[in-house]
Amino acid sequence: MPSFSRLVRFLARDGRTYYGDAILPRGVTDISKARQAHIITGDIFGKHDVTDQVADIRLLLAPLAPEDVRSVRCLGLNYSLHAKESGFPVPNYPVLFFKPPTSLSGPSDPIPIHPMAQEGSGLDYECELVVVVGKKCADVPEEKALDHVLGYAVGNDVSHREWQTKRGGGQWALGKGFDGWAPFGPGIVSSKVIRDPQALRIATRLNGQTVQDSTTADMIFNVKRTIAFLSQGTTLLPGDVIFTGTPSGVGMGRNPPLWLKDGDVVEVELEGVGTCTNRVEFIRKGRDSAKL
Amino acid sequence: MPSFSRLVRFLARDGRTYYGDAILPRGVTDISKARQAHIITGDIFGKHDVTDQVADIRLLLAPLAPEDVRSVRCLGLNYSLHAKESGFPVPNYPVLFFKPPTSLSGPSDPIPIHPMAQEGSGLDYECELVVVVGKKCADVPEEKALDHVLGYAVGNDVSHREWQTKRGGGQWALGKGFDGWAPFGPGIVSSKVIRDPQALRIATRLNGQTVQDSTTADMIFNVKRTIAFLSQGTTLLPGDVIFTGTPSGVGMGRNPPLWLKDGDVVEVELEGVGTCTNRVEFIRKGRDSAKL
Repeated sequence: MPSFSRLVRFLARDGRTYYGDAILPRGVTDISKARQAHIITGDIFGKHDVTDQVADIRLLLAPLAPEDVRSVRCLGLNYSLHAKESGFPVPNYPVLFFKPPTSLSGPSDPIPIHPMAQEGSGLDYECELVVVVGKKCADVPEEKALDHVLGYAVGNDVSHREWQTKRGGGQWALGKGFDGWAPFGPGIVSSKVIRDPQALRIATRLNGQTVQDSTTADMIFNVKRTIAFLSQGTTLLPGDVIFTGTPSGVGMGRNPPLWLKDGDVVEVELEGVGTCTNRVEFIRKGRDSAKL
Repeated sequence: MPSFSRLVRFLARDGRTYYGDAILPRGVTDISKARQAHIITGDIFGKHDVTDQVADIRLLLAPLAPEDVRSVRCLGLNYSLHAKESGFPVPNYPVLFFKPPTSLSGPSDPIPIHPMAQEGSGLDYECELVVVVGKKCADVPEEKALDHVLGYAVGNDVSHREWQTKRGGGQWALGKGFDGWAPFGPGIVSSKVIRDPQALRIATRLNGQTVQDSTTADMIFNVKRTIAFLSQGTTLLPGDVIFTGTPSGVGMGRNPPLWLKDGDVVEVELEGVGTCTNRVEFIRKGRDSAKL
């Protein structure tokens, strides 16, 4: 079991990047409000120390370093009302797809919309409970599944519906896998703090207006069942990230549909974890290459 | 450009695991026949040396170490006859899905069939040209795409059709993503040796009988176009692996269908690269956990 309560990764005043255990004022649970953290040294998945050294947080980063992420699993249609609004039947088994690790980004990063994803319509938001696997495991029984969880975050499974469905040939990975299309954070709340991940309010605000507002109690396959199922014949690794699906209220399910535009600000919030606030940013061709 | 010609990863006589540059007898191109290799030191994606030190190969392993793999992309329906036999229209864009890195295994490893994948019918083989990305890149133009390739291997995109299609809710990742369901190898032939990846014979033999026999010339989206497309708005990383789709002749496309059984031996072969020979092995529940 990790020794931290709220894992954050951050740029400190000294210009260096650290893992830390967020310090929150009494009564505050939103990690995005943290201004200081105890620096953590060592391997966050193994032997590590939460030190007495306190650092000022200049910027919260994606709560896992790119080299610490192994893979990003996502579930589709995992809230019954969302399955209905999407026009799909409620699934008999978890519906699995992957995003590349390069889609992960931080709790205040812009969401870059590449010219390819500016074509057609259908740019959409999806607030999700994010599970981070802490221990290598396979064939995990449901009753032991939560023992393998490092903690929980909130994420936005940004999606382009036209690339996701029609142009993607029915496979969702392409229309959901662009760089920066899986912001998550603002930190990872340890499974010793969140004992029951199925009683958390989860919501999205678009330019300040609530567009998704639900509870993780409505998940079709809860976290336990999801981990047990996904680990059958498949080894889960420390640093595997699981986006567990979105509740109803996505832009696609509305009449008329509500698509994200350049400059929109999307906030996804999970009770007891906090908020990611990401601005939609249409970019010009070639910008990404220049950054490499 | 890498300095090696045929990258292998192997268990040596001394009991240690090395990267090496395979030594092949004159006239032999199948890397699985290699018995010796020049040991490579350093970072295979960066600064490295092909040393004069020659080691005996006891066993060829998956040609990339697990920690050197970032993600595993796969294309579906990328040969026109295969799209037809699958009952799908020829796609307008590459159809993308992912396997987890844990699905990768070596050129002579057994293919473990977990009890969950012994349910229902539909266990199938798919020989594929596998591309290994050598350099970080994004928004790559077609004419420069091959500059970012480390080299080429052959792989088997093992699939369970019922989990892939019906039970998977239409998303293919689950029914193709079990541990060991992406054997590849036997080595990685440098892009300086294979200059044109679109003129290679590719085949599958099941228990010695040829069941797929085609050429990479028949790919709908060739390697250049695939890399250019997949890199739009998405950063490809050194160690990203791309399975580029299978030609016709899969078990699903036959009448009656031809499904893999316990004990079957599947060989996938790519001209100029070599052969992976993997035995289908039905396993009992819990076996995987014991290995962790």
